[in-house]
Amino acid sequence: MDRREAIRTALGEEAPDLVLKHARLVDVLTGTVYPADVAIRDGVIAGVGDYSGPAEVDLGGRYLAPGLINAHCHVESSMALPRAYCPEELRWGVTTLITDPHEIANVCGGEGLRFLLDESEGLPINYYVQLPSCVPATRFEHAGAVLSARELAPFLKEERVLGLGELMDYPGVAACDPAVLEKLDLFAGRIVDGHAPGLTGKGLQAYAAAGVRTDHESTTWEEARDKLRAGIAVLVREGSASKNLTAILTGALREGVSTREMAFCSDDKHLADIRREGTIRHNLRLAVALGMDPVEAVAMGSLNAARIFRLPNLGAIAPGYRADLVVFEDLRDFAVSAVYKDGRPVDADALAADSGRQPGVGPVFRSVRPAPLTAAALALPDRAVQPVIEILPGQILTRRGEVRREDIPSELAAGTLRKIAVVERHHATGHVGVGLLRGYGLRHGAVGTTVAHDSHNLILVGDNDRDLLTAAGELTRVQGGYTLVRDGRVLGTLSLPAAGLMSTLPAGTLTGELEKLLTLAREAGVADGIDPFVTLSFLALPVLPELRLTDLGLFDVTAFRLVD
Amino acid sequence: MDRREAIRTALGEEAPDLVLKHARLVDVLTGTVYPADVAIRDGVIAGVGDYSGPAEVDLGGRYLAPGLINAHCHVESSMALPRAYCPEELRWGVTTLITDPHEIANVCGGEGLRFLLDESEGLPINYYVQLPSCVPATRFEHAGAVLSARELAPFLKEERVLGLGELMDYPGVAACDPAVLEKLDLFAGRIVDGHAPGLTGKGLQAYAAAGVRTDHESTTWEEARDKLRAGIAVLVREGSASKNLTAILTGALREGVSTREMAFCSDDKHLADIRREGTIRHNLRLAVALGMDPVEAVAMGSLNAARIFRLPNLGAIAPGYRADLVVFEDLRDFAVSAVYKDGRPVDADALAADSGRQPGVGPVFRSVRPAPLTAAALALPDRAVQPVIEILPGQILTRRGEVRREDIPSELAAGTLRKIAVVERHHATGHVGVGLLRGYGLRHGAVGTTVAHDSHNLILVGDNDRDLLTAAGELTRVQGGYTLVRDGRVLGTLSLPAAGLMSTLPAGTLTGELEKLLTLAREAGVADGIDPFVTLSFLALPVLPELRLTDLGLFDVTAFRLVD
Repeated sequence: MDRREAIRTALGEEAPDLVLKHARLVDVLTGTVYPADVAIRDGVIAGVGDYSGPAEVDLGGRYLAPGLINAHCHVESSMALPRAYCPEELRWGVTTLITDPHEIANVCGGEGLRFLLDESEGLPINYYVQLPSCVPATRFEHAGAVLSARELAPFLKEERVLGLGELMDYPGVAACDPAVLEKLDLFAGRIVDGHAPGLTGKGLQAYAAAGVRTDHESTTWEEARDKLRAGIAVLVREGSASKNLTAILTGALREGVSTREMAFCSDDKHLADIRREGTIRHNLRLAVALGMDPVEAVAMGSLNAARIFRLPNLGAIAPGYRADLVVFEDLRDFAVSAVYKDGRPVDADALAADSGRQPGVGPVFRSVRPAPLTAAALALPDRAVQPVIEILPGQILTRRGEVRREDIPSELAAGTLRKIAVVERHHATGHVGVGLLRGYGLRHGAVGTTVAHDSHNLILVGDNDRDLLTAAGELTRVQGGYTLVRDGRVLGTLSLPAAGLMSTLPAGTLTGELEKLLTLAREAGVADGIDPFVTLSFLALPVLPELRLTDLGLFDVTAFRLVD
Repeated sequence: MDRREAIRTALGEEAPDLVLKHARLVDVLTGTVYPADVAIRDGVIAGVGDYSGPAEVDLGGRYLAPGLINAHCHVESSMALPRAYCPEELRWGVTTLITDPHEIANVCGGEGLRFLLDESEGLPINYYVQLPSCVPATRFEHAGAVLSARELAPFLKEERVLGLGELMDYPGVAACDPAVLEKLDLFAGRIVDGHAPGLTGKGLQAYAAAGVRTDHESTTWEEARDKLRAGIAVLVREGSASKNLTAILTGALREGVSTREMAFCSDDKHLADIRREGTIRHNLRLAVALGMDPVEAVAMGSLNAARIFRLPNLGAIAPGYRADLVVFEDLRDFAVSAVYKDGRPVDADALAADSGRQPGVGPVFRSVRPAPLTAAALALPDRAVQPVIEILPGQILTRRGEVRREDIPSELAAGTLRKIAVVERHHATGHVGVGLLRGYGLRHGAVGTTVAHDSHNLILVGDNDRDLLTAAGELTRVQGGYTLVRDGRVLGTLSLPAAGLMSTLPAGTLTGELEKLLTLAREAGVADGIDPFVTLSFLALPVLPELRLTDLGLFDVTAFRLVD
């Protein structure tokens, strides 16, 4: 809509494309609700008040709110491609995503960024990108790529690239690591996302002084408050595993602080969970259940995020703002009755049904390329006492245990111990880390995954080398995914051929296939309280205490070094 | 401060330039107050918490707030140049000005903009500029310049130019006047200030749809609320003449709305008033007296304005923000005990004492250039019944009265009627408008001014042509100002040689000189309830009802045309 058309439509001199009649307008600008019609033209709000036009939808007093904004999410964590992921967000009123393609970047580098930018192009959602700041996540593993300032720079000209994604390398900031500072300099004047669980005191001040302007890792109100005071916007996270909303907002409500510098995000949320309850919409109802004013909650889920990320025409309902809108039945459960993107109704079911694609031919679809794996490579290092990664049910943290060499065969036979291997899969270097795992269960056979934060090497767990090799072969054949094998036979595989991280299936099919595989894994004896694949996917992440395994071997996170 | 120094100073590894110890920090980010030290280096806040350094100032528990932001002001209206004006703002804690050099632009066009940019360069204040959008204000008078999009464009590259100043031409917006749309297109993506008293309904929606994002003309809460809902930030004005704060905030507090989209401004405030009570600081104490939370009031006077004008490093106290700070004794009266700009203490008295300058030689100092004025040019148009401008005490509006030709001599003799003339003074065109004025007083003699909104022609009022000519000659001789003459003799003159609008004196001398001249004018019989010069300065503004006089003659504002 050009300016002339906007003015004339607002004046009622020209017809809008659509009028949403009889709304209860959730006005996040004033924090109030008032009755109004909303006139839309060319995807933009032309006027709010008393309007009519050739195309009208009577909202019958339902609540009309700005489209919601998920202020930080990793689409790859849903295992769906953007075209399959976005309908599930849109279904629940999210019309803007601030994504951090950190996962695919660790596998495919700049080609991965390009791929997700292309895949998300033209979808009926505002798909913004924060460029990954920490690829690889650490130097104790081999990822598929390295992204320095030089590799990131060309992406700054992309319209949908806003800033720098979660800066996990706090030690690098504190040490003034030149590679980190170079990235911060490159993104000067843009929004830099933080990622600093538990950081307080002078360290937090240094992190803020370095230029970090958001963080989504607060788990307590006190931590969130300290970050807010440091000028770091708090993105309150409610994902599938990390649920921080109640702790943060309970404190904020108790102390009556301003929420203007807080927004909502999901970070990592499983597709089935999103399909069931949404992301930000779920946060809204949790916040209101805690006693937050509903319009304030909606502001956190819309305008606040828009302001934090400097998106001037998003997050409110007023002339000149994009007509990204969600209709709620109520402001308690936030049941969604309609969603509009750029003024057009969104049919999430139709979008979802049409969201599959064939695997392509580019490097993203040729990402599982380990060196040929042999039984010899799966031999444990020769130690009298072997360190053991002990999984804790319901937790992402592990404990460091141990086992004597002579007890390993009997523990393997008893099923209390399983072998775990991490196989470098990006550049066929032949690096294989081998260790032992307790607490996983699995009676007999092997499980494998190419989703393995953050380098996404191949993780294999099992009770015998033959099945480990079978699993590796299967995942190489399908170019990534989850698999369950027994006695050399594949019981089930969920193929994730896009970077070994994402399926090409539509969301419904994908969640169905995953459910089937999870049932098979449960039947195979994976312990209760443990997600058969997601738990594995964190076992190679050398930043979570206490013991992890990378393709370079066991890593003692507490000492922050490889085990000798 | 480079990033490395910022980080190391925040960590406590390198020394800050200054530590403000034991502050009660007014944290507008969370809306709370908490105790802290603030470490400053290179004019930027490095860390907040527990800091020490070689240079410390103990605040002893005083309140430390972000430097205040005056979100809309015309420096010319103070009659002081920026170097004399800014110390008076700094004295009361204002460290950022959003100025609109609309007045000088009407006299000197782009050369006036350039002059004020140069004059404000290097002052210890953030001096931002919104480029004047409406020069000339109307087509019913001759101003000194015309600023179209073409003349404004070169100024967009100036670092301190933010956007487009008050768009007074609502009719031009509604009519999609190409010249107006061209300016809006030029400033797309920047902040456009509005100026739309009383605008509501579809007209307001059109104004917002056109791209206007602030307005400072609301006089009632309902008007402010409608503008907020339209996505137009409300700059709550408290000037010398226009005082809107109580009406707007009483309503906002009663309805419990969010104030996030509201900030404070002074628009036009006399220098003596600023010296006595400040601008934004005065607004803070008024707001708190009405019952507003003090931290919320401070946020309106700092962070809100910074966010509205997209100034990311202003308006809060946190690492990376500029160390523009004000120390308050309390949060009720907001007595100022110290001000810091870029981390350095401001000595407003010393700045003020040093703020005079000699008139320069450029076009700004050669702006009063009327054609030679003769008694013949001061003859009244020949009408049987003459329209009369009637001044209403204490008001800026006028009424249209009339007088029969034969009654004029006796009324002039009785002192109830005075002759008024507006003399074009920019381009020596010889245009002179002549009319009659009632309610001004002045026993005998003439008063003259070159401050005459918005075109700033020469206004003369008196009871005889000789004194009118004497006043015109005096103001031409001194190149602008206020003057009072009697029987061909100058009783007193305040010289305003910068564009005929501003003095070159320091603020203290200027207010003293003005006070002396006002006393002379009172003694000369100017009526009570009328400012001898300010009232005159609005009599040529052809947008204020009902009757005005321009250099083209009497203008009927209600009919919006020149009187035949």
